[in-house]
Formats: sequence, structure tokens, C-alpha cells
Amino acid sequence: MTFSLNHYLKERSQLVERELSAIVVSSSGPASKLFEAMRYSLLDGGKRLRPILALGACEAVGGRIEDALGFACALEMIHTYSLVHDDLPCMDDDDLRRGRPTNHKVYGEAMATLAGDALLTDAFGVVAKSPVAHRNPAIVIETIAELSHAAGSGGMVAGQVIDLANEGLRLNIEQLEYLHALKTGALFHISVRGGGRLGGASPEQLEHLSAYARSVGLCFQVVDDLLDVEGTAEQMGKRTQKDLQAGKNTYPGLLGVERSRALAIDLKNRAIAALAGFGAGATPLRAIATFVVERKL
Amino acid sequence: MTFSLNHYLKERSQLVERELSAIVVSSSGPASKLFEAMRYSLLDGGKRLRPILALGACEAVGGRIEDALGFACALEMIHTYSLVHDDLPCMDDDDLRRGRPTNHKVYGEAMATLAGDALLTDAFGVVAKSPVAHRNPAIVIETIAELSHAAGSGGMVAGQVIDLANEGLRLNIEQLEYLHALKTGALFHISVRGGGRLGGASPEQLEHLSAYARSVGLCFQVVDDLLDVEGTAEQMGKRTQKDLQAGKNTYPGLLGVERSRALAIDLKNRAIAALAGFGAGATPLRAIATFVVERKL
Repeated sequence: MTFSLNHYLKERSQLVERELSAIVVSSSGPASKLFEAMRYSLLDGGKRLRPILALGACEAVGGRIEDALGFACALEMIHTYSLVHDDLPCMDDDDLRRGRPTNHKVYGEAMATLAGDALLTDAFGVVAKSPVAHRNPAIVIETIAELSHAAGSGGMVAGQVIDLANEGLRLNIEQLEYLHALKTGALFHISVRGGGRLGGASPEQLEHLSAYARSVGLCFQVVDDLLDVEGTAEQMGKRTQKDLQAGKNTYPGLLGVERSRALAIDLKNRAIAALAGFGAGATPLRAIATFVVERKL
Repeated sequence: MTFSLNHYLKERSQLVERELSAIVVSSSGPASKLFEAMRYSLLDGGKRLRPILALGACEAVGGRIEDALGFACALEMIHTYSLVHDDLPCMDDDDLRRGRPTNHKVYGEAMATLAGDALLTDAFGVVAKSPVAHRNPAIVIETIAELSHAAGSGGMVAGQVIDLANEGLRLNIEQLEYLHALKTGALFHISVRGGGRLGGASPEQLEHLSAYARSVGLCFQVVDDLLDVEGTAEQMGKRTQKDLQAGKNTYPGLLGVERSRALAIDLKNRAIAALAGFGAGATPLRAIATFVVERKL
């Protein structure tokens, strides 16, 4: 039986969607608007790439995906909070996200700020409630510590600060790579590592998963930059070429389109090579690396 | 030897201050402004009431305060993030906080939003790194789950949403109590419970600590409302009577000043009564309940 990535991604994203909808439930109480705003941005049919990577890493080491499912959802909650806050007028000031009005356009800035805050805060509680905590609480604590580092001042938030500070400045390739390692790479990295850890990965397996994650995360960013140059507003669901207009640093802007494409393919190959010691359980992770490059088609 | 609360509060707030300064360190790297903005609001000489309650609860059950110190700092980080975001123009739009310009007035709105996000995110990592995790990881996980609930959509953030939605509406006393139970009470409650739990509290002790925390938390809010009516801008370090002007619901506005004072004293007595089964280790918690009422002097 051959592996169908399309089928796999559809099944997994539906699993994550159902679980997310059960974690952040609608409410008829006095804070009902908060839950509505949280669900608006959380349940918008995103690709669920980070949760799927976490579940794939859990599977790659022979773990039970139930043990990584809460963590996988927490990643999407954190990713979503970061988008909601990034879209605010005081940050990137975006009106559209995945083809729909951004959170603050629908619910106002105060509610969008608070919905982001709640998604971020609740995410850590979701990880703490992982069923594997009953058997092995230490790996859950380690995962929470790494997630906090990757999403906070040691990772994603620092990346966003550097990105805003660099607007209009020309970076070299090392500086751009450092920026992305923090801004998007750190959360990719913990997605794969955390999923593997909760699935029972050995220290050696965790090292290989880390190498995979670093390559896939950077590959994702290079392809994202390429899509921004090549895509249309319809395909992307947001204003394109906006990054270039805003003077943001991108791989095509720095390396040109052809060299950026070659870099993406090289990163994909390195990601797959990092999984050489893994068996058939890593088939989805390998296929996802290819998918990340090919989504530009 | 008699117990000196002044000496105790000074010693404990200095301990917390030192630890906070070691957790959120200055940086000369490309994200240095982020750490500067985080430290600006975090290290501003606040009362550190939540950390001190956590350490006091740890002590009350005979625990080692080192086991609750990280958690205590995390509470202050979460409290600080909530103040930074609450002060934003899209929320309460405050220019002054504890007599100094608010975070966004100094660093801009984007940085204030991100500094708040980072303080919140980092806080969970600090709890995860509690030294007691090596001996008893399960109580650390339980504490993280309760902290997430108290600070997120099940507590503080929901309270803030309800508060904003109620502006200009007149609440009855039950509605006001519910609002405060979420907005400020939930974090007080987890401060005391979490400190007790990390100190090794029995389930019965946790129940008594919860009762204490609920009374002290509400007492704090009633006194805060009273201070807002009676205080001067100088004493409070922020614009006073602002709540009344903005049509916010307060205890003096609803019950009058005298009945609000009587309620505060009743809540203090109930807090102290909840600790009847505790020995000399609970002396600081008892003294703090009295201090919360008397700080209006």
C-alpha cells in the first residue's frame, strides 16, 4: 500500500480541527465574545502544519498520537495567537488573513489582544493535561520548558522584535537566517522535538528530529518568501508583495528567485537525510518535507 | 520574638526582585530592546503581593521557599504582562503606572504588546524549571494547569473581557463579585494554592488555603476600589477616580464607602479564620490579610 500524503494531511488536519474545537468551546456566558474571537482565528481551516509535524514526530519514534495530541493543539493555539497579535494595527496592520478579515477587524483591537493572550495562556494548560503526564510527568515538564523558550523571549517573540527593528534595513544571509531561526524556526523545532519527546524518543532520536526540524523550518520560510513574490492575492489569501513593499528582508530579495529555489530543495534533502536512521514510521515526516517545497506549485 | 510584617515584606520583596532580575536578564543582542521593555515594567518596585502570598503559603505548610520561588516570580511576570496589555491605548489607555510612564509610552505599542507576550510565555517556562520538579514532577504539572486556567480564558482574561463589556452598565453586587473573582481573584487564588502545593500541602490544607485566598483576593479588590475613591494621584501613582469617571463598577459606587469598609474587614476576618488549623508557619499569611485592609492608612 502506497502512502498518500494528501489523505494523511486531510485526516490529521481534521483530527486537530476537532480537538481544537473541543478545547476552545463556545460559551453563552458573559465572556462569550472572547471564546467567539478565539474560535474565529483558531478554527479557520489553516494547514495545521505544526500540529501535523508534532504528531508525525511522535509516530516516527513509535509513540501513540494521543500522547502528543494536546501538545499539537497547543502549538496551533500559540501559532494563532502570534498571527492575531502580528496583524494588529500597532504591528503589521493587516486587514486580511487566509482570505478573511483579521481578528481585530471583526472584534476590535481590545478583544483581538485579549483573544491572543487567552490562546497563548490556555495553550500551556492543554500541554499540562497531556495524558502521558500520568505515566511520565518529567517529559511533559521538559516539553513545557522548551515550548516556553521557543515561543517567548528566547524564540518567536524575539524574532518578531528583530523583524520589526530591521524593517527597511538590508540584512545579509546570516542575519536573515538568524531572524527566521527565531521567528518561525523555533516553533517548528519544538513542534517536532516535543512530539518526538512525548512519543518516547531516545536522546539520539531527538537529535535527529532536531536536525530535521531546523531544515524543514527554514525551508518553509524560504518557500513562504518565494510564494510572496510569485503568488497572487487569491492564492495566498493576503496581500502579496507586501513584504517587499514594506522593505522587509526576504530570501528572493537577497539571493534571487533561482538561488532561493535551489536553497529550498537543498534544505528539503537535508531534512530527509536527517531521518535516515528512522523506519517506515517516519514516512509522513519525509513526505511533509517534500510537500513544504512543492506547495508552491 | 515578635513578627515584623514590614521587615518580612521588605525581605521577601527584595528576594523576589533579585530573582526576577536574574530570570529576565539584560541583553546586548539584536533583541535587546525587548528585554529592556520587559525589565522596565517587571522591575519597577511593585509590592510583589502575589509572589509573597505564594511564598507565605509554601511556608505555612512547612515547605522550602526555594521550591516556590520560580512560581512566585512567574506570578509577577503574568501580573505584569496583564498590566502592560491593560494599559495599551486599545484597552484602558493609561499613560501612568505606579508613577511612571506606561510601557507603550516609553517603548511604543508594538514593543509593549510583545514585551507582555514574552513575559506571559516565559512565565510558564520558569514554573517548569522549579527545582521540586526533580522530586515531584506531578505537583509542578498540576500547578501549571491551574495557573493556565487562572490566567487564561477561565480566569483573568475572561474577567478583563467582562470588565470592558460592562463599562457604563450598572452591575449588582453578585455580578461585581463574579467579575472580580475572574479578573483579580483567580490569580490571587492560584498564588496561594500553587505556593501551598509546591510546598507539599495536603488536600485538606489546600482547601483551607483556597478559602483564605478567595477572601484575601476579594478584600484586596474592595480596598483597591476604596483607595481609588479616597486616594490622591500622588499616593496611587496613577490617575484616580478614573474608574468612576469611566463608568466602571466599584464597591464604593455600589455599596457606599462605609459598607465597603465593613465588607473589607469582614473578608479579612474570614481569611484569618480559614487558617485556624495552621500553626506559627501561617503567621505571615495572617499578617498579610490585615495588611491588605490597612494599606489604605
